[in-house]
Amino acid sequence: MDFPSKLLENAVNEVAQLPGIGKRTALRLVLFLLQQPSDQTMALSNSLLALRNDIKYCRSCHTISDNELCEICSNPSRDHATICVVEDIRDVMALENTQLYKGIYHVLGGKISPIDGIGPGQLNIKSLVEKVRNSKVNELIFALSSTMEGDTTNFYIYRQIKDCEIITSTIARGIAVGDELQYADEVTLGRSLLHRVPFDKEFKDL
Amino acid sequence: MDFPSKLLENAVNEVAQLPGIGKRTALRLVLFLLQQPSDQTMALSNSLLALRNDIKYCRSCHTISDNELCEICSNPSRDHATICVVEDIRDVMALENTQLYKGIYHVLGGKISPIDGIGPGQLNIKSLVEKVRNSKVNELIFALSSTMEGDTTNFYIYRQIKDCEIITSTIARGIAVGDELQYADEVTLGRSLLHRVPFDKEFKDL
Repeated sequence: MDFPSKLLENAVNEVAQLPGIGKRTALRLVLFLLQQPSDQTMALSNSLLALRNDIKYCRSCHTISDNELCEICSNPSRDHATICVVEDIRDVMALENTQLYKGIYHVLGGKISPIDGIGPGQLNIKSLVEKVRNSKVNELIFALSSTMEGDTTNFYIYRQIKDCEIITSTIARGIAVGDELQYADEVTLGRSLLHRVPFDKEFKDL
Repeated sequence: MDFPSKLLENAVNEVAQLPGIGKRTALRLVLFLLQQPSDQTMALSNSLLALRNDIKYCRSCHTISDNELCEICSNPSRDHATICVVEDIRDVMALENTQLYKGIYHVLGGKISPIDGIGPGQLNIKSLVEKVRNSKVNELIFALSSTMEGDTTNFYIYRQIKDCEIITSTIARGIAVGDELQYADEVTLGRSLLHRVPFDKEFKDL
């Protein structure tokens, strides 16, 4: 792509470094910004810079936060004896949306994935193990994605804390609410059968 | 969407104002930036701000440019008597890519589109008409998109300059190179038949 302006070229190249955005889309976005009042570009740039420079990570659960301790960890009405282990902040947001979880979280920041060069040392595993050993934790809920990397990470953490007297659990795998059986894969369907729930219990929980 | 951080929420809201980017994609992009070195966010923000604040539009053809007069308009080896009328800068880039056009351009900045509230006054039509009247222009090539709005705009400009002694033309409509006839729409196929080209001429031009 030949650009008539160096400024335009720079902006397009920077935007095109974002994931899933190619040069053509980047050009479209940049030209859109040029057509809008310059306030909008100013607000966009400033909000990104402010986020990058001032963002904090909760010192207890490592989620993104405006303070040293995030809102969930600093909330005394949450159950601090139950920790849900998740991959990143989007999982925290998804679980919070259910309004069914009253414990706290621990954000690993990824999964163990040798192919991507991510080992246990790059994840927030050490602080989790310390937390389990040093404070009163009853239950650890693994809520990682159901992939080989997720399972490996679960198992790695489990081995580090298996001598502690705590309950460990994983979230249930099964047929999604509203899904039809005939389109489900056999592994999921098999698991949903193995881990079937007493009929009266399902209604009590809702 | 409930965000655990005001900074994150602001950044996501700003990014989500770009066309074709929803809140989920915005969150993905913002979290990606957080994982990268802060230099990248800095470079992105600065390039957008620099573009928005320092960008110039060529005073002759209104294309985006780093200088008062763009590279094409200030190039003495281009044919300044032939003007190609286009909608926006992406069309200039596309036509330049063909390496077949040696004239200059005139960027309208859009098409006449009453539905979107765009009238002739918002486009760079007046300066085009002045250019045609006051300087030695031989030919005006309309290269707007082949829509009702494009045709309306072509016709509006044509009426303003039809008393001038210049050639007006539009780019050829027809079957795209590499396309099969059976999949072409009938209007395009009809036009390609009406405006057929002498066989020996096609080879001479290439």
